[in-house]
Amino acid sequence: MARPDGRQPDQLRAVTLTRQWSMHPEGSVLVEFGATRVLCTASVTEGVPRWRKGSGLGWVTAEYSMLPRATTTRSDRESVKGRLGGRTHEISRLIGRSLRACIDLKALGENSVVLDCDVLQADGGTRTAAITGAYVALHDAVSWLARRKALAGKPASVMRRSVAAVSVGMIDGEPRLDLCYEEDVNAEVDMNVVCTGDGDFVEVQGTGESGVFARQQLDALLDLGVAGCAELTEAQRKALAA
Amino acid sequence: MARPDGRQPDQLRAVTLTRQWSMHPEGSVLVEFGATRVLCTASVTEGVPRWRKGSGLGWVTAEYSMLPRATTTRSDRESVKGRLGGRTHEISRLIGRSLRACIDLKALGENSVVLDCDVLQADGGTRTAAITGAYVALHDAVSWLARRKALAGKPASVMRRSVAAVSVGMIDGEPRLDLCYEEDVNAEVDMNVVCTGDGDFVEVQGTGESGVFARQQLDALLDLGVAGCAELTEAQRKALAA
Amino acid sequence: MARPDGRQPDQLRAVTLTRQWSMHPEGSVLVEFGATRVLCTASVTEGVPRWRKGSGLGWVTAEYSMLPRATTTRSDRESVKGRLGGRTHEISRLIGRSLRACIDLKALGENSVVLDCDVLQADGGTRTAAITGAYVALHDAVSWLARRKALAGKPASVMRRSVAAVSVGMIDGEPRLDLCYEEDVNAEVDMNVVCTGDGDFVEVQGTGESGVFARQQLDALLDLGVAGCAELTEAQRKALAA
Amino acid sequence: MARPDGRQPDQLRAVTLTRQWSMHPEGSVLVEFGATRVLCTASVTEGVPRWRKGSGLGWVTAEYSMLPRATTTRSDRESVKGRLGGRTHEISRLIGRSLRACIDLKALGENSVVLDCDVLQADGGTRTAAITGAYVALHDAVSWLARRKALAGKPASVMRRSVAAVSVGMIDGEPRLDLCYEEDVNAEVDMNVVCTGDGDFVEVQGTGESGVFARQQLDALLDLGVAGCAELTEAQRKALAA
Amino acid sequence: MARPDGRQPDQLRAVTLTRQWSMHPEGSVLVEFGATRVLCTASVTEGVPRWRKGSGLGWVTAEYSMLPRATTTRSDRESVKGRLGGRTHEISRLIGRSLRACIDLKALGENSVVLDCDVLQADGGTRTAAITGAYVALHDAVSWLARRKALAGKPASVMRRSVAAVSVGMIDGEPRLDLCYEEDVNAEVDMNVVCTGDGDFVEVQGTGESGVFARQQLDALLDLGVAGCAELTEAQRKALAA
Amino acid sequence: MARPDGRQPDQLRAVTLTRQWSMHPEGSVLVEFGATRVLCTASVTEGVPRWRKGSGLGWVTAEYSMLPRATTTRSDRESVKGRLGGRTHEISRLIGRSLRACIDLKALGENSVVLDCDVLQADGGTRTAAITGAYVALHDAVSWLARRKALAGKPASVMRRSVAAVSVGMIDGEPRLDLCYEEDVNAEVDMNVVCTGDGDFVEVQGTGESGVFARQQLDALLDLGVAGCAELTEAQRKALAA
Repeated sequence: MARPDGRQPDQLRAVTLTRQWSMHPEGSVLVEFGATRVLCTASVTEGVPRWRKGSGLGWVTAEYSMLPRATTTRSDRESVKGRLGGRTHEISRLIGRSLRACIDLKALGENSVVLDCDVLQADGGTRTAAITGAYVALHDAVSWLARRKALAGKPASVMRRSVAAVSVGMIDGEPRLDLCYEEDVNAEVDMNVVCTGDGDFVEVQGTGESGVFARQQLDALLDLGVAGCAELTEAQRKALAA
Repeated sequence: MARPDGRQPDQLRAVTLTRQWSMHPEGSVLVEFGATRVLCTASVTEGVPRWRKGSGLGWVTAEYSMLPRATTTRSDRESVKGRLGGRTHEISRLIGRSLRACIDLKALGENSVVLDCDVLQADGGTRTAAITGAYVALHDAVSWLARRKALAGKPASVMRRSVAAVSVGMIDGEPRLDLCYEEDVNAEVDMNVVCTGDGDFVEVQGTGESGVFARQQLDALLDLGVAGCAELTEAQRKALAA
Repeated sequence: MARPDGRQPDQLRAVTLTRQWSMHPEGSVLVEFGATRVLCTASVTEGVPRWRKGSGLGWVTAEYSMLPRATTTRSDRESVKGRLGGRTHEISRLIGRSLRACIDLKALGENSVVLDCDVLQADGGTRTAAITGAYVALHDAVSWLARRKALAGKPASVMRRSVAAVSVGMIDGEPRLDLCYEEDVNAEVDMNVVCTGDGDFVEVQGTGESGVFARQQLDALLDLGVAGCAELTEAQRKALAA
Repeated sequence: MARPDGRQPDQLRAVTLTRQWSMHPEGSVLVEFGATRVLCTASVTEGVPRWRKGSGLGWVTAEYSMLPRATTTRSDRESVKGRLGGRTHEISRLIGRSLRACIDLKALGENSVVLDCDVLQADGGTRTAAITGAYVALHDAVSWLARRKALAGKPASVMRRSVAAVSVGMIDGEPRLDLCYEEDVNAEVDMNVVCTGDGDFVEVQGTGESGVFARQQLDALLDLGVAGCAELTEAQRKALAA
Repeated sequence: MARPDGRQPDQLRAVTLTRQWSMHPEGSVLVEFGATRVLCTASVTEGVPRWRKGSGLGWVTAEYSMLPRATTTRSDRESVKGRLGGRTHEISRLIGRSLRACIDLKALGENSVVLDCDVLQADGGTRTAAITGAYVALHDAVSWLARRKALAGKPASVMRRSVAAVSVGMIDGEPRLDLCYEEDVNAEVDMNVVCTGDGDFVEVQGTGESGVFARQQLDALLDLGVAGCAELTEAQRKALAA
Repeated sequence: MARPDGRQPDQLRAVTLTRQWSMHPEGSVLVEFGATRVLCTASVTEGVPRWRKGSGLGWVTAEYSMLPRATTTRSDRESVKGRLGGRTHEISRLIGRSLRACIDLKALGENSVVLDCDVLQADGGTRTAAITGAYVALHDAVSWLARRKALAGKPASVMRRSVAAVSVGMIDGEPRLDLCYEEDVNAEVDMNVVCTGDGDFVEVQGTGESGVFARQQLDALLDLGVAGCAELTEAQRKALAA
């Protein structure tokens, strides 16, 4: 019952975080989890949406999308269909919540950051790769604001913690880390774990669409997810130190 | 640090499940968790969507919505805005996954059931009330099909398990069951737990938007959620026995 | 040629007007005309739309909608389709015009009231039940404003008159009052009559889709409608006196 | 208290019905009620919408629209806004019902006719001009089908009756026929009357947005409307005889 | 290989420009190129869109549309479909660019002009007829502003140059001017040429969808287009002098 | 008056065509014109749209889009706005026409190819880079079909000719090849030239939004564009030979 790519059950795929992949954004990271490839850009604008003006608080939001042929068969564009699908909405909201958890909006001041996560190639785990990459892009965008003296608080206080995310799942009763697409579609339980660099949880979402899961299995998956996030945190640290 | 309505931390609000609240649907339940009031209807149609024809499998889907003035201030209608919001999408998908977990689609045969969950009055926990009520409505719709001899499998085998759901959260460091709106907006951690009647998990979603949470806290919240779902399962059993 | 529910041709169905059915809105009424059940809420906001600011006039508008399974077969949600249908538009406009006829917008002052009429269960006459119930909800909302001293004019002068509405129709050549669904689909002529408490007309809409009608028939239907509205006016009076 | 254009209270504006105004449609009429100018085209297609196939019945539907600068100030296009407004929906439905009243759908056979009524210039009464012109365009389209032997019934039996429509209203307590725009905005009561060539009613819609009206006033307006429709019927007869 | 209507290869169809066709717009022209008939209206509003306020510059924009039965078979309305098609967008943008080329936006001052070009009947060349007619409507709208002393610059300086447009194409290897619909669909190469009154180019768009074209052919088509525009310029001059 | 990047007026930017950039599509090319970076994928599906079935002809279509932060400032997503903009429509249509010009749809047989051109980074000339890259992706997709013996005609006959495209423009009266963004916004005349490998034209679009242009200038720009396309053709040939 080997994994399709020969990995150990608790082994991540090769992870790369390429900073400054694009020339225009204030932060931009091409994140790769194996063949999954997501372009995360952080776009800064001065000011906040009207309903938040005068609050002294900044705003961080996220939008997730897939190129039509990021997947094995082509999907119609949501811009052509004229509406966002439920999956897009759900993932965009997850990314936004996760990234807001790592920032002090008061120290950010009345600045807005939009995190665009566009999947260029999909092979499972696109939302967790997106969160992991978006953190690095957000960090770069905050540094950009710091260089311009545009933050309300001390630069060090804006990024309160780091976040990273990974998927875990049960396949044939075995808990596995960082599922590729082939594993994802066969998983009995599928869980996304978002952790801080300190190992705390930001978000946990576990689903047993083709089955149910016991507390013991949930615990095993959480252990695996926490360990995976710790490795990703280290990869983020190295990328930001480069 | 008493709860707004004087409950114990591990106490549910008054739960009522009124079957046959509407005269047209094959199953219809008005579910109340305290002041939260959701009308859950199950609409049966013969046949399945085109892409599923000939598969021998049935189809169960869910749509969640709120009346514009179910809430303290009025929200614009999504029909008037011309698009579904992200929250609506996210909750509809959660309800659909949860209810599909309790049904054997092969035994259902090529029949479709749409579960409409319309919030008439909101006071926290609308999505978990919706899942809890939709289970009863779905059960009634399957019985309706059984009476018409329209199921592919034995009636008893169609409903594989029951599902119920409840929200739990940390307020001022205290784990609490079944949050009302006032608690919900103040929770540091907010979790929705969907369990089967046997106490297994169908879905777990924990979010720490205004904070992060440790494994120990997660465990305490899960314990509380599992216990709450067991009580709701009992309420469902009684309602169906009536 | 008895009526499906054994009523006399000039007899209304049982009418109930339950005030304060919901806890959040400034006015809320569950109106029932037999099995037809419409939740009418009146939501007050301070101020008026931008184009009306500084005019000294208030604003009253209405939105009508049906739950997807209010009817014998399920209809797709307009929020999912992304557009309002013609019937929804037409009825919303009729309710809005009817309710604006009973209010002195100058005495209301720069306040806005939105009347949401959501059909929970449909058995014919939903638009006329909606108007009849919305009047009571609007009355309660105006009283709420009066208690807050937020009206521009004297409370008594804001509600210039009451309005009530009823459907009438020709079935097999017989004029009948307050058609249920089964009668509605078989009517040769279908008319909605909106009257004030004084018996004047606010709106009259008669349609002979499957036929035409003579002046004499029109006169008979108007007589029946006026009498029906008088009974409904009395029911409103009692509900408001309770 | 003379009318803006010096007419008698019971006098129509100059009415012209120009057939074959366009070269492509099976029927096309430019109808003018004074300065109001509506292009009515009837487009025939073989067959009926899918849900009606095999019924043996034809289908007649109508769409009303205004050019953006048909009015004194420019309105945004509904195609640019991406949605139809309530007024457009309401009027399109009225025209469709009125024209279906004059046709025997069984004798039409499984053919579809779309009546497009595009207002090129508006000066009050656009919907009634549209109905009056669309009747002539529909008549020409049915003749076109008759020449092609494409009708299910005898040509003479397809057009069961003629329809014409006119607006009437109370201005300063005086009942007036065929209101121009300036009168329309000042009317206390506004009514649209759709009659057959035999003087029966097809549709009656009376509204007292800025007031209410007594039975006596309603009667006076109906008298005026019936007389106006009789004159329009004569104009249609002459146009079709030309 | 005669042309369908017997014209010489370098001969325009009969061109008419009827000014003041509509009573409401500040400029309105019914332009006809043979059977092609486009109503061009120029609507003036004081002020400019928000993003342009304070710039001292005016704004000119254009919207092109076709009535549903302007063509041989009926097209669905874009307002009903809820979205503009690519062709509509493309042509609206072409008309807007062409007309902005003939106006000094600084001399226009902070006024906006919307040019609506609605095709009442189509027989090829609708976009070039629209540009040719819209120029005359724009000229009239600028004169209207001049009479009201509402221009920032001298009236004579606002209209910097005239523009006219014509289609040219290769049919069976022969370059032809001003294609009618039957020629248009059979053209190997189709080109739209927009020229100023001085014979300079404003826009050139050549397409060889069913083939490719050599430089020599391009040159022949350009010659033909320039000559055609010169004739149209003369027709515009006469219309404006009338 | 040197170019921003020091190029000669008739010099292209560095051009790279990276084949098989993505793993899922039948053809995929990352094309770079300097800093402009477009991912072109060709997605093959068996069969053609319904309206084309049984014709024996294939179908090739294109969709162009920009990532929100491909540009110097972030643009809102068209999927979020719920509608495609005019520019997107216009460019998608241009790419589609250009690529259809190089394929024999009969030899392709009833297969469909969608060319998705997503701009990852924009620095002028995105549409011409897209056409140039899409040709190579389409070539690979046709080879893929050939290997599967799924073409109706001989593989060699399907690709009738190659196409490449480049922008040219007048800056300060100087004709320049392959404008970068900074030049593009300052160009008096902007032209896109689409040529076949044999030097014939497929499409020519010249616009003088901030000015007009004489025949002589047009000729100079065409010369430059034809020469640029010849170089790009050579780059395509090399990429396909690799």
